[in-house]
Amino acid sequence: MLTFADPLIRAEQCFSDAPALVDGSARFCFGELVERCRRLAGAIRAATQRGDRVAVLATNSHRVLELYLATPSAGRLIVPLNTRLAQPELAYALKDCGARILLTDRPASQLGPLSGLVERVIGLGDDYEQWIASAPAAELGADVDENDVAGLFYTGGTTGTAKGVMLTHRNKLADTLHLQTCVRITADDSWLVLSPMHHAAGTFQALLCIWLGARQILIPGFDAGPVLDLIERERVTVIFGVPAMLTAMVDEQAARSRDTSSLRLMGYGAAPASSRLLARFHEQFPTTELVSMYGATELAPMGTALEHMERFIGTDRVRSAGRAIAGVRIRVVDEEIKDLAGGEIGQVIVRGPNVMKGYWNKPEQTASVLRDGWYHTGDLGYLDAEGCLHLVDRAKDMIVSGGENVYSTEVEEALYHHPDVFECAVFGVPDPRWGEAVRAVVVLRGEATPDGATPDGATLDGAALDAAAPDAEATNAKATNAETLREHCRELLGGYKVPKQIEIRSEPLPRSAAGKVLKRELRAPFWKGHERSIS
Amino acid sequence: MLTFADPLIRAEQCFSDAPALVDGSARFCFGELVERCRRLAGAIRAATQRGDRVAVLATNSHRVLELYLATPSAGRLIVPLNTRLAQPELAYALKDCGARILLTDRPASQLGPLSGLVERVIGLGDDYEQWIASAPAAELGADVDENDVAGLFYTGGTTGTAKGVMLTHRNKLADTLHLQTCVRITADDSWLVLSPMHHAAGTFQALLCIWLGARQILIPGFDAGPVLDLIERERVTVIFGVPAMLTAMVDEQAARSRDTSSLRLMGYGAAPASSRLLARFHEQFPTTELVSMYGATELAPMGTALEHMERFIGTDRVRSAGRAIAGVRIRVVDEEIKDLAGGEIGQVIVRGPNVMKGYWNKPEQTASVLRDGWYHTGDLGYLDAEGCLHLVDRAKDMIVSGGENVYSTEVEEALYHHPDVFECAVFGVPDPRWGEAVRAVVVLRGEATPDGATPDGATLDGAALDAAAPDAEATNAKATNAETLREHCRELLGGYKVPKQIEIRSEPLPRSAAGKVLKRELRAPFWKGHERSIS
Repeated sequence: MLTFADPLIRAEQCFSDAPALVDGSARFCFGELVERCRRLAGAIRAATQRGDRVAVLATNSHRVLELYLATPSAGRLIVPLNTRLAQPELAYALKDCGARILLTDRPASQLGPLSGLVERVIGLGDDYEQWIASAPAAELGADVDENDVAGLFYTGGTTGTAKGVMLTHRNKLADTLHLQTCVRITADDSWLVLSPMHHAAGTFQALLCIWLGARQILIPGFDAGPVLDLIERERVTVIFGVPAMLTAMVDEQAARSRDTSSLRLMGYGAAPASSRLLARFHEQFPTTELVSMYGATELAPMGTALEHMERFIGTDRVRSAGRAIAGVRIRVVDEEIKDLAGGEIGQVIVRGPNVMKGYWNKPEQTASVLRDGWYHTGDLGYLDAEGCLHLVDRAKDMIVSGGENVYSTEVEEALYHHPDVFECAVFGVPDPRWGEAVRAVVVLRGEATPDGATPDGATLDGAALDAAAPDAEATNAKATNAETLREHCRELLGGYKVPKQIEIRSEPLPRSAAGKVLKRELRAPFWKGHERSIS
Repeated sequence: MLTFADPLIRAEQCFSDAPALVDGSARFCFGELVERCRRLAGAIRAATQRGDRVAVLATNSHRVLELYLATPSAGRLIVPLNTRLAQPELAYALKDCGARILLTDRPASQLGPLSGLVERVIGLGDDYEQWIASAPAAELGADVDENDVAGLFYTGGTTGTAKGVMLTHRNKLADTLHLQTCVRITADDSWLVLSPMHHAAGTFQALLCIWLGARQILIPGFDAGPVLDLIERERVTVIFGVPAMLTAMVDEQAARSRDTSSLRLMGYGAAPASSRLLARFHEQFPTTELVSMYGATELAPMGTALEHMERFIGTDRVRSAGRAIAGVRIRVVDEEIKDLAGGEIGQVIVRGPNVMKGYWNKPEQTASVLRDGWYHTGDLGYLDAEGCLHLVDRAKDMIVSGGENVYSTEVEEALYHHPDVFECAVFGVPDPRWGEAVRAVVVLRGEATPDGATPDGATLDGAALDAAAPDAEATNAKATNAETLREHCRELLGGYKVPKQIEIRSEPLPRSAAGKVLKRELRAPFWKGHERSIS
């Protein structure tokens, strides 16, 4: 029923001459933006078939936003690639989705073998402008159904391979209207986009702002100083960020105060913020409402939210992820999918028109998380008496570092590919700058146990067992140290996933009776005294 | 995906102890309301089959609201009957929908033959309370699909027979989220319901308020004095009414001022309000935002809206119905369904997930208004450069009197059933209290032309031709006058449809070359000097 074309068409009908986009010196009104999208849709339709994938690898710009809007409106799938991924990870995603076109702001020299994986690479500068200038305008949304997949959004997976989350037009349009119930936008708003657009958090405002005639301001990346300058200069009203950004903004504002009185709302998510951080933020930005949000790429992305968090500073509620956003159902269930009483910890499951269609070409992994219409998040938590969700653990062992999701199992698998690694555990530890830092504890071969043996007869997890078969013969473990392991990881993983801290220890990792590594035991000493809901 | 059960379940999860409903001395928190709905759903399920119809004939009360919420949540169709209809009209609707149960606040003595049309009549007092007290609680929304019809909403038809508008769960839930983009509700709001719940305007707030934890205040009917008292006493924040209500509120507030500073928003619709009325309202209620709305039962009901109308007093925009609400597409097209340029007058057509499934048991009439997913409103208008819709005529000749829709052709048919009526035309004229009053111009048999002849050889409209065959022999036309005609109408029509003014004239009605009665000519003298977009 509704597709990406609907917000664009309404914006053109109602706000044609009003400012739509600011990107450095480039400024477009809605009429111009929609016309550019129409030409871009025409160019895409001419170069591809219905349902083809179009990949984007670039830092935020108005062209990236245009691609995000026009590709689905042309009946093709947008695939935003994470710019922080390493080449093998990018190659995997490109091959997995089978993109025909790659649009990128990277020079050919930096693409390496990636260029060979697609039919055509188009540079996001003059090439792009020429491409759309010569294209016939296409009717936006023609032959597009609400249940068509609008894009594939790659997310790290617990199994070590990324999964393309299939979000339909309906998923995204539903999420957009749900979002409006806690972030109430009008045509008077200006939303400064801080997150990269390969993340849900970088685009979840896009359709909403366009639908309601609000302005979006784009920057290539977050830097607290320029961001505060921009808030003052452009009279920004709404932003969304991760707690690490809040910290940087507070420090910057404390050091050099700008007029940020226009900033009426700051949403934040990906990790809980401490009472102390919220109090400091509220002191520096007294006119700004704080809204806590929790979601997942699979939810397109919103799950819960809590408005006016600044009112809860110093209370337990600060650690809450908030209430099910209107349109979304949240339950906390036991292993038999029975509802648990308030306060009891279980798995968080979610239902709504925003829940993804599934993982691209991964029916088994889809079936394991989508059951009877409910998405099983893998997160553990409980609901309080007022419906606020409190997360207590991540069953998926995800680490959130600087707003990026790092799956510990993925990093562990990379470590296991090093011939000298006998066993390892990866988890997050507090980091003043990034929120969490990736820490690995590694036991080298021949250190704690005889080469190749399973310690204490315990059963390793399946994934670890697979990985325990090394790629190559064991090298001399004596030459392997934290630095060489980091180097090894850098070849396989995006930089933000590479452990900042690697501890090499000689005693075996602590394990449960069932043989599972007790990560909580490893993690606990680092989190002592830190206010945090994820233990 | 989403059903009527979703707002109820969220409200119970998040706002269990918060006030949900005020109805005189009855007050329920959300936990109580949802539990009552669960029992009511249980009672309904026990007494009916999936898809059965449950009719309600009653003035507003918390029980009527519970029925509106619980019947669809139980997988049955709610059928709210217009309390102002005459017995034959009510009988028609009951027979047309085939309701098994009728819930009513009317004593059996007033129901007459209506009781015989259903299996069971349940009184909306103690009977109702006993019925739900003994019922097992049912799971809300179990086995209900978003595309199931939630209710039949009867609307007068141009052909003289009422049509049951089928609105699905999805239709209503979509409209609810669309509404939120122009009437932004939070858990701090209190919505006083002024319109009768057999109208879309009496229930369109219900799911929204429940979803977001806002309070609803119910009254049996509109009376400006008590309404202003209630606004002051209950700190009401939002209301919706028709222009006639605005007028009455302004007069009342001017005569005896209450503290209405809590009233942050007043929506109004069904007819445009004049600049003068808006200015007077703004003077008496300076803290209240005015939101103009336009819709139709077939749209569940929202089509367009314009916020902050108080800013446009004295401008052309005051006459606008507003912009397509986000989620809804509006086009103005010519007879070949081609888009017209801005400013050009054509038919208004509408698309969106809110558009009805069709008319109950009326496939032909459904097909005539639902084409390629677009609902053809029959209204004529144009779009201005900023996407604001201006209505210039009602192709369906609808009169809006005190917020009630009166279709002129329906009243004409009733008149034609009188044996002495030779020809007639019904239209709306300005009325200080009701917005519009129903006026009829009647030519009696044997007055202007020979008995039974068609005047001037012109062709009467099809409907008029059918009706021109009188039910009985012509009586002595000399004895027929405005009063006897009104009496005749009262037997066939709801009181609000009976012409307030009847002019009996001897000259034939003005007709076009094609033989159509030129209602505009008849109407024009009355509207001279009145600021109004419907000519």
